[in-house]
Amino acid sequence: MAIAILTSGGDCAGMNPAIKQFVDYCFNKKIEPFLIYDGLEGLIDGNIKKASYDDVAGIMHEGGTKIRSSRSKRFFDLEYRKQAFENLQKHGIDKLIILGGDGSFRALDQFYKDFGIKFIGIPATIDNDIFGTEYCLGVDTALNIIREATDAIRDTSASFKRACVIETMGRDCGYLALVSAITCGAEVCMIPELDYDLEVIGKRLKQELKEGRKYIVCVVAEGCSKNRCTTTNELVRWLEEDVGIETRATILGHIQRGGNPTVYDRLMASEFVTFAIEEILKEDSESSVIVYNKSEFQFVSIDYVNSSKYEIKKELLDLARRLVN
Amino acid sequence: MAIAILTSGGDCAGMNPAIKQFVDYCFNKKIEPFLIYDGLEGLIDGNIKKASYDDVAGIMHEGGTKIRSSRSKRFFDLEYRKQAFENLQKHGIDKLIILGGDGSFRALDQFYKDFGIKFIGIPATIDNDIFGTEYCLGVDTALNIIREATDAIRDTSASFKRACVIETMGRDCGYLALVSAITCGAEVCMIPELDYDLEVIGKRLKQELKEGRKYIVCVVAEGCSKNRCTTTNELVRWLEEDVGIETRATILGHIQRGGNPTVYDRLMASEFVTFAIEEILKEDSESSVIVYNKSEFQFVSIDYVNSSKYEIKKELLDLARRLVN
Amino acid sequence: MAIAILTSGGDCAGMNPAIKQFVDYCFNKKIEPFLIYDGLEGLIDGNIKKASYDDVAGIMHEGGTKIRSSRSKRFFDLEYRKQAFENLQKHGIDKLIILGGDGSFRALDQFYKDFGIKFIGIPATIDNDIFGTEYCLGVDTALNIIREATDAIRDTSASFKRACVIETMGRDCGYLALVSAITCGAEVCMIPELDYDLEVIGKRLKQELKEGRKYIVCVVAEGCSKNRCTTTNELVRWLEEDVGIETRATILGHIQRGGNPTVYDRLMASEFVTFAIEEILKEDSESSVIVYNKSEFQFVSIDYVNSSKYEIKKELLDLARRLVN
Amino acid sequence: MAIAILTSGGDCAGMNPAIKQFVDYCFNKKIEPFLIYDGLEGLIDGNIKKASYDDVAGIMHEGGTKIRSSRSKRFFDLEYRKQAFENLQKHGIDKLIILGGDGSFRALDQFYKDFGIKFIGIPATIDNDIFGTEYCLGVDTALNIIREATDAIRDTSASFKRACVIETMGRDCGYLALVSAITCGAEVCMIPELDYDLEVIGKRLKQELKEGRKYIVCVVAEGCSKNRCTTTNELVRWLEEDVGIETRATILGHIQRGGNPTVYDRLMASEFVTFAIEEILKEDSESSVIVYNKSEFQFVSIDYVNSSKYEIKKELLDLARRLVN
Repeated sequence: MAIAILTSGGDCAGMNPAIKQFVDYCFNKKIEPFLIYDGLEGLIDGNIKKASYDDVAGIMHEGGTKIRSSRSKRFFDLEYRKQAFENLQKHGIDKLIILGGDGSFRALDQFYKDFGIKFIGIPATIDNDIFGTEYCLGVDTALNIIREATDAIRDTSASFKRACVIETMGRDCGYLALVSAITCGAEVCMIPELDYDLEVIGKRLKQELKEGRKYIVCVVAEGCSKNRCTTTNELVRWLEEDVGIETRATILGHIQRGGNPTVYDRLMASEFVTFAIEEILKEDSESSVIVYNKSEFQFVSIDYVNSSKYEIKKELLDLARRLVN
Repeated sequence: MAIAILTSGGDCAGMNPAIKQFVDYCFNKKIEPFLIYDGLEGLIDGNIKKASYDDVAGIMHEGGTKIRSSRSKRFFDLEYRKQAFENLQKHGIDKLIILGGDGSFRALDQFYKDFGIKFIGIPATIDNDIFGTEYCLGVDTALNIIREATDAIRDTSASFKRACVIETMGRDCGYLALVSAITCGAEVCMIPELDYDLEVIGKRLKQELKEGRKYIVCVVAEGCSKNRCTTTNELVRWLEEDVGIETRATILGHIQRGGNPTVYDRLMASEFVTFAIEEILKEDSESSVIVYNKSEFQFVSIDYVNSSKYEIKKELLDLARRLVN
Repeated sequence: MAIAILTSGGDCAGMNPAIKQFVDYCFNKKIEPFLIYDGLEGLIDGNIKKASYDDVAGIMHEGGTKIRSSRSKRFFDLEYRKQAFENLQKHGIDKLIILGGDGSFRALDQFYKDFGIKFIGIPATIDNDIFGTEYCLGVDTALNIIREATDAIRDTSASFKRACVIETMGRDCGYLALVSAITCGAEVCMIPELDYDLEVIGKRLKQELKEGRKYIVCVVAEGCSKNRCTTTNELVRWLEEDVGIETRATILGHIQRGGNPTVYDRLMASEFVTFAIEEILKEDSESSVIVYNKSEFQFVSIDYVNSSKYEIKKELLDLARRLVN
Repeated sequence: MAIAILTSGGDCAGMNPAIKQFVDYCFNKKIEPFLIYDGLEGLIDGNIKKASYDDVAGIMHEGGTKIRSSRSKRFFDLEYRKQAFENLQKHGIDKLIILGGDGSFRALDQFYKDFGIKFIGIPATIDNDIFGTEYCLGVDTALNIIREATDAIRDTSASFKRACVIETMGRDCGYLALVSAITCGAEVCMIPELDYDLEVIGKRLKQELKEGRKYIVCVVAEGCSKNRCTTTNELVRWLEEDVGIETRATILGHIQRGGNPTVYDRLMASEFVTFAIEEILKEDSESSVIVYNKSEFQFVSIDYVNSSKYEIKKELLDLARRLVN
C-alpha cells in the first residue's frame, strides 16, 4: 500500500511539520510514504520520490514547504491529469494527502472523479478563509510574525508621536488583520467584514491625541483595497490631513508566509495528518476534506466546503467593534 | 459601579494583556476599573488603585504580571479576609476578576461566602492542569518558549551525536512535556500520564543509533520525578550507561514563565476578560469560573472545577504513544 | 551639577539602554540627571524632567526611545535656541548628551557657540552613515531584524522557485543592505557603493537556475533608487522578464527601526554613555562627538565628522563583489 | 589543489555560516573544498567528503555544526595521526581550516610538525577565552540567547518580588556572565575575574528593597563554583536567608550553544574564513591562528596563543564594578 503527500497553492508555516509527521506515521504504520515535489505541477511531471527519514530530518522548524508548491493551470486539462495518474500508477500510489486551499481540493476532486484516486485535503492557508473549518494550518505562525512586526513598528511610532498603518495579507478575508488589531492593541482596524465610519474614528482619535495619546496603530486587511477603494495610501493621507498626525505605512508582504512554525501549527499539523491518514486507510472512505471545529476533527465533502463563504465568528468581530468607530 | 482585577499564584504570560483589556473594556462600558497589586496579599494590605490608561499602556507585550502576584497564607484567616473586605468597601468595589489557579478560586469562593463579594475566576497557569477547561491562559506562550529552547538544544546535540534530556515545568501534569515532545520531534517523552517501558525504548534507540541516528531528544515532565522516582539525572545515567550515548540535561526552569505573550494568549486574554465582565455585570450572576471548551466560553461552579482532576485528552496522548515504547 | 540627555532625529534600538545607563551612572556619580523629552522640540518647549529610577526601570529591552525624538526646524532660529537655553538654566543644566546623527550634532554645536552649553554627541542611526566612526548605535539590532525577515522570506521563496527582492533602509548608504546580503546568503546585492552589471548577473543567475537553483534572494539598498533609477520595481521586472523567474518584492520599512535591542547595541549604549559622561565632566572638555574605531572610544570634533562622507571599508565591499557580477 | 574544513571541541553558532562561506569561496576561487565530518575523530576515521553546493544550502541560519564536532583522545596518539594523514593523502588534501579552541589548534600543530599539513585555526567558542583575540566565533549568539532568557526570567521575578540567580556557561572565563549582567540590567554579577564583597552587596540590596525595589537579578559565571566555592545554590541560600528575598535559580545550560546565528557571528564567520583561505594559499604561509583585534584580522602563532591566559579588558570590568559591591 502506498500513499503520497503534496503541497499546493500558497505556502505556509506548518507544512513541513505535516510532511514530517506524514512520513513518520506511515513508517510506524508500515505504509510506504511518497513525496510529490512542486505540487500539482510535479504530479504531472512525475516529480515523485519514495520518502526516507533523511528527507524529513530536521525540517520541523523550517517555514514554507520542503517539497515545494505550485499553482497549476495544466491540471485543468484532462490530458495532463491522465499523465499525473500514470505517474502515480508507476509507483503504485492510490491515495493522496494534499495541503492547500479549496481550489486545490477541487482539482483533486476532479482527479478522483476521473481516475478514482482517493485523497484527503488539509486546509492550509494563512488567509484562514476556507468555509467549514475554524482553523487553517499556518494561521497561528502568520499571526505571530505580524505581532512581532507590529510590536517593532509601535516602538518607533511611539518615539515620534506618529501614526502607523500596517497592511496584512488575507486576500478577501480580514481574519489576520482583525486578530492582529485586537492582540496588538491597535486603535483602528479596517477589514472587509466590518463597516467603519471615518468621521467617527477621526473624532475619537483627535480627542485622544488632545488628551495625550502618543501614537496610533492602524491595521488594515489587504482585502479592503479591492472592495472599498480604501487603499493603505489613502488612509495615510487621511491620517496626515484630517486627523493631523505624521504617518508611516508598512506593507508586511511575504514575511508573513515564512518563519519557524509555532507550537500550535506544529501540533495542528500532526493531528491533521494523523487523522487524515487514519481516515483514508478506511475501506469505505470517500474523498473529502478534514476540518477542525469545536476542538474536534471531522470530515466533510468538497461540495460542503464550496457551498458557502467563510465568515469570521461574531464574538470575534464584536471584540473589534470599538476599533471601527 | 466598581470592579477590580487581581492576579494570584504562579504568574504567566497573558496576564498583562488581560489586565489591559480589563481596563480598556471597563472604560468603554463606563465602569470604574481598579487594580489590586500583589494578589491576595495586596488585597489584605489595601494595595488597591483606581486604574488609568497610563497604568496599562504598552504592557501588552510584557510577560508576567504588572500588578504582581503572591501566594497568601493569611487569606485563610477570617480576620485578614475581613480586612480585605473593608479595603474593597473603601473604594466601593463589589466585584472581582481573578486570574490564577483553582486554589485562588477557592479562596475567593470562601470570601464570597463570608462577605458576598462576587467574582469570576479566569484559569491562568502554564501547567494547564485545571479541571473543566481545555485551556488555561499562558500555556501557548510557555510551549513556544520551550520550543525555542528545544530547537536550540537539538542543534548542539546534533553536532555531537549526543542525547539531551529536557525537563519542563507542569507540576503533576504532563501537558507541557507531552505537547513539546510531539511538536519538537522528540524521540522519548516521559509524563506522569503515560506508562513507559525503558527496556523497549532502549532497544528502539539502540537500533536507530545503529541505523545512523545522530542525536536523541528526550522531554520529561517535572511531575515524573515525584511520582515514579525517575529523575532527570537517572534518565541521563540510563542513556549514557544502557543506551550508550553521551547525554546532557537541561532543566528549563523559570524561562518558561516569562516572555512576550503569543497572539493566542493575547486573544484568549481578551476574550476571557470580556466575557467575564459581561457575566459578572448580570444581576443574577453567581460567583464562578469561566472555562473554554469546544471553542466556546462557559461558566461553571467552583465545586465543578474542584470535583475532579484534569485529564489530557486521549487523542493527544495517542499521538505520543510511540515515544514511550 | 546637572546634566541632561536627549534623543534626536531618527530613532533606533539602543537609545533606551543608553538612557537607562545615563540615569544609573549619574546616580552612581552623585550627579543630577535630567531627561529632555521630544528631542530639540522638547528642549525649546521646556519638556524637561529630573530623572528618577522609575523613569528608566524596565526600558532596557524596549526598542525606540522612551523620551521620544523629533526633527526640529525651529532650532535653526536663534530666538528658539535662546528659549531652549533659558529652559536649561531654570534647571541648572549646563551639559548635554545627545543621541542622533550629524545634523543633530551640528545643531547643538551652534547652540554651544551661542550659549556655551557643552555637549557630547553619540552617533545613533541605523543607517551607519556618520563619518569618523565605524559603528553607530542601533545598527546591530536593525541588521538582526532584517536577517529574521530575510530568513522568513527565503523560506517562502524556496517553496515556489521564486526570486525575492528585499529593500532595506539606509538612505544614501548601502551598509545595511551590504551586510544583510553577505550574512543572509543573497545571490544579488545592489548598493550605491558598488557598480553592478545586470547583464553579467543575469547570465550567472540563468546558469545557476539551469543547474538546479531553487530560489534567488536580492537585497537592495533604498539609496539605489535615488542614485541610479534602479528601483526595486524595475529589478522585479528585470528578474521576471529577463532572467525568467517569478518574483516578489518586500520593502521592509519601519520594522527595521524598532525591536528589542541586541546585546551588542546594549553594550555599546552603556559604553558610549559612560565614556561620554566621563569626558564631559572634565573641566577642559570641548564639545565634541564620541566615536568608536578599532575597538576604542575616542572624541573628535564636529568639524571632523562633517569633513567627509562615511565610506564602507574595502574588505567588506570585497566580500560582496561576487554578488554584483 | 584541495583544502578541507573541520569543526572541533565545543560547538557554537557561526560554525555553519563559516562552513558555507568556506565552500562558496573555494568554488569561486576554483579550489576543491572538502568537508571532514565529526572533527578529529572523523579525520582519523576517514569521514571526509568532497563538498557540493547542496551540502551547504540553507545552513546559514542553523545553530551548531552540520559537519559535527568531537573531542578526540586518539589524536594524541601518533599512530592515529598517521592514519589521519593517509586519509588526507587519498583525497589530495594538504591544507586544513579548523574551527575550535586552543586545544584543537595544538593538536593540529603537532600534526603539522609530524606530516607538514598546513592549517589555520579559527577561534570558535562561546566562552570567549582564547588568548590573543578579542572575539571568538559564537559569542554574540550565545549572549543574545542569554539575553532572551534573562528578559523572560526578569518578567516572572518582577511579578513576585523575587530574586533570580542565572548561571551562564564560560568555564573559567566570566565574559558571558559579565556582558550579560551589564546588558540585562542585573543588580549582582559574580565572575572569577572580579572580587566581590557579599556583605557590601547585601547592604546595598537590602537598602534598595526598603526603597521599593521589586526584584533582583544576579548573573553568575559557572567558573565561580570551581574557584571560590560559591555555587549558585549557596547564593540562593544567601539571598533568601541574609538578604531576605524569595529566590529562584536557573542554570541556562545547553540552550546557550545552539540557536540561529546572529548577523555579527555570520559576518565574522565570513571574514574569518575568507582571510584564512587567502592566507593559507600563500606559498610562504606557516600554520597559525587567525585572530581579530582592533577591527583587524591578523595571524599569530600557536605559541603566542598558548603563551598567556585571556583577560577581559579593563574598561569592561569597570562597567560592572558597581555590581560586585
